Amino acid sequence: MVPDIATSPAPATRGLPAQDLKLTLESPLVLQSGIVLSPVTLAYQTYGTLNEARSNCVLVCHALTGDQYVVGNNPTTGKPGWWDDLVGPGKIIDTNRFFVVCANVLGGCMGSTGPKEINPATGKAWGLDFPVITIRDMVYAQTKLLDYLGIKKLFCVMGGSMGAMQVMEWAVRYPERVFAAVPIAGSYRHSAQNIAFHEVGRQAIMADPDWAHGNYLAENKIPKRGLAVARMAAHITYLSEAALHRKFGRRLQDRETLTYGFDADFQVESYLRHQGYTFVDRFDANSYLYITRAMDYFDLAQENDGVLANAFKGTPVRYCLVSFTSDWLFPTEESRAIVRALNAVAANVSFVEIESDKGHDAFLLDEPEFHQTLQGFIEGAAVSLGLPTRSTL
Amino acid sequence: MVPDIATSPAPATRGLPAQDLKLTLESPLVLQSGIVLSPVTLAYQTYGTLNEARSNCVLVCHALTGDQYVVGNNPTTGKPGWWDDLVGPGKIIDTNRFFVVCANVLGGCMGSTGPKEINPATGKAWGLDFPVITIRDMVYAQTKLLDYLGIKKLFCVMGGSMGAMQVMEWAVRYPERVFAAVPIAGSYRHSAQNIAFHEVGRQAIMADPDWAHGNYLAENKIPKRGLAVARMAAHITYLSEAALHRKFGRRLQDRETLTYGFDADFQVESYLRHQGYTFVDRFDANSYLYITRAMDYFDLAQENDGVLANAFKGTPVRYCLVSFTSDWLFPTEESRAIVRALNAVAANVSFVEIESDKGHDAFLLDEPEFHQTLQGFIEGAAVSLGLPTRSTL
Repeated sequence: MVPDIATSPAPATRGLPAQDLKLTLESPLVLQSGIVLSPVTLAYQTYGTLNEARSNCVLVCHALTGDQYVVGNNPTTGKPGWWDDLVGPGKIIDTNRFFVVCANVLGGCMGSTGPKEINPATGKAWGLDFPVITIRDMVYAQTKLLDYLGIKKLFCVMGGSMGAMQVMEWAVRYPERVFAAVPIAGSYRHSAQNIAFHEVGRQAIMADPDWAHGNYLAENKIPKRGLAVARMAAHITYLSEAALHRKFGRRLQDRETLTYGFDADFQVESYLRHQGYTFVDRFDANSYLYITRAMDYFDLAQENDGVLANAFKGTPVRYCLVSFTSDWLFPTEESRAIVRALNAVAANVSFVEIESDKGHDAFLLDEPEFHQTLQGFIEGAAVSLGLPTRSTL
Repeated sequence: MVPDIATSPAPATRGLPAQDLKLTLESPLVLQSGIVLSPVTLAYQTYGTLNEARSNCVLVCHALTGDQYVVGNNPTTGKPGWWDDLVGPGKIIDTNRFFVVCANVLGGCMGSTGPKEINPATGKAWGLDFPVITIRDMVYAQTKLLDYLGIKKLFCVMGGSMGAMQVMEWAVRYPERVFAAVPIAGSYRHSAQNIAFHEVGRQAIMADPDWAHGNYLAENKIPKRGLAVARMAAHITYLSEAALHRKFGRRLQDRETLTYGFDADFQVESYLRHQGYTFVDRFDANSYLYITRAMDYFDLAQENDGVLANAFKGTPVRYCLVSFTSDWLFPTEESRAIVRALNAVAANVSFVEIESDKGHDAFLLDEPEFHQTLQGFIEGAAVSLGLPTRSTL
């Protein structure tokens, strides 16, 4: 396989972390819609060292508003990477043994080609001229990155939420390139309720006059209010009622009594507003439209005549699925449907539902049982593939 | 008790229905906030005939976006009243036997005093100068209406959702005026998650430039987009995931394939947009702010030092609570907490959780087990009070 690459620096396959890498593909990308997109750049990070056999790569797929900064300092937020608890030297995804790669998704806003990047045909930001992309397109672009890095087969592909959708897509579309797949808090298709919540977010953005029909960058505006409202609505779905009750309940914010007004009397209001208005500093509104759309379109059953099991026939991939009891955005039943379909074709699958009251966001948090589950699976897979394990190191 | 009334026509206590009644209170209303509101008008409907003993009144309390048009044609929407299945001649709330009253809540936008009505001090719409009102204020205003109608004691007060909050307030604040109370799909306090959803709706409205800091009526604008987004977000919470899946699933709207765009590809998107944009024709954005705030503030435990049972000590009221299995906005656990508190003071209470996949909205729908439950309770209460029953009529 010839690496599909020209303009980027040599791949950084050593050292931790290799910061702010970019790959611009040599060939245009033919999207699922049939549209040909060019040029395509992927911004990515790597952590750890690729072994000689190029067999120790863990591809991490990020969620809707995630990014490639899995570990260490995130230059945009100044905070630790979103999976800093899980990935790093000596951690469960041990960068002393594994070569971890994470790319900003196609359509994203952290350096990969997306609606806020410049459309070479016009010299302006793509805006709504950017083609609608799908989870399949995101993964297809990632295959080009792995080609470039000379990685024919992943040791493991893993991710939560929209990351889990990419994991499923990888394992179903490129089973020969995946040894192990770990979809966490995910689904094989986006539910009606989740499409509905995404539609509310999109409508909130498009309702903001500063969105300017998607042309806000050219007009030097930012649809802050619409994007903040979209984020607030979405943020509620990432938590559980129990988590909100435990964190905030009906406690008041810096006051003794109700003010009989529309200020944020309750802590939960203040928290939501903060979530909304800090989000707009780090995320592009059009990217939000495109990425939510990609999730809505995802449906592995539909493309197999409604029979999900057909997607997995003869799969050599070993799966580990994880769900969380209080996750109502991607409830356990969604993971169970995948497990049932994998069982129907006698695939290699393990599944754990983690008891947690933290809702969907639990996949980002330091949940001991969750981490133990991953550790057991990763170590077992490493043994099977003859990679160093925690004990052999 | 002297009827507190002057400017309204004689009370219509006969005939079905008595349309578009209004009562303007003679005295100002002292609100829970301490603010004195005047004048106060309540728009209300009555159905059926008040008996000589004035003992057959059923007060119906409406929900957030409900109104006084319980039965028959709603002049605003042209649709049947919101409880037409339940209330009417020969129906469970039988207007051949009961005198049914429903008033638009204080703060509402269907004729009762609220932010869209004229502030006599300025000659302009109240807007944000309207005082924040509470569930207690809504109920206090209703007591004045009953005073005017000469009704000292209600046979029954009933309502769902925010209506259930008013029912609880009635039964706790005026136990001597309530024989039976039926709070349906309700709670004794608004949860953190529900406050969060309300805050999203308020932020969506306030983010709309056409809201004009609440002054849109004076500026001849309507914050349609913001109010529509608020309604869309709320509407999802009224249904269950199962109901959305059954009604829409991932079915496409008037098309064979995905369009790779931001049109409403999915039926659920089209439905939500319709819900949002028809709502703005019948509801006032500022009313939405005020009424959601009233719900957020509701907390019967807090005002009893956190011990809900103290609210019910010595209560003579007979309660019937109803919840629905798939209601995640006011889940069964909320009703159960009330039942436990009532049991703790040995109150007269029955409780039924109805098996339904229709979510919170089930209280508005023709659910046979729900209706049977109400019928059993209402008939039993009628026997106890010596009112005619279905069989004696």
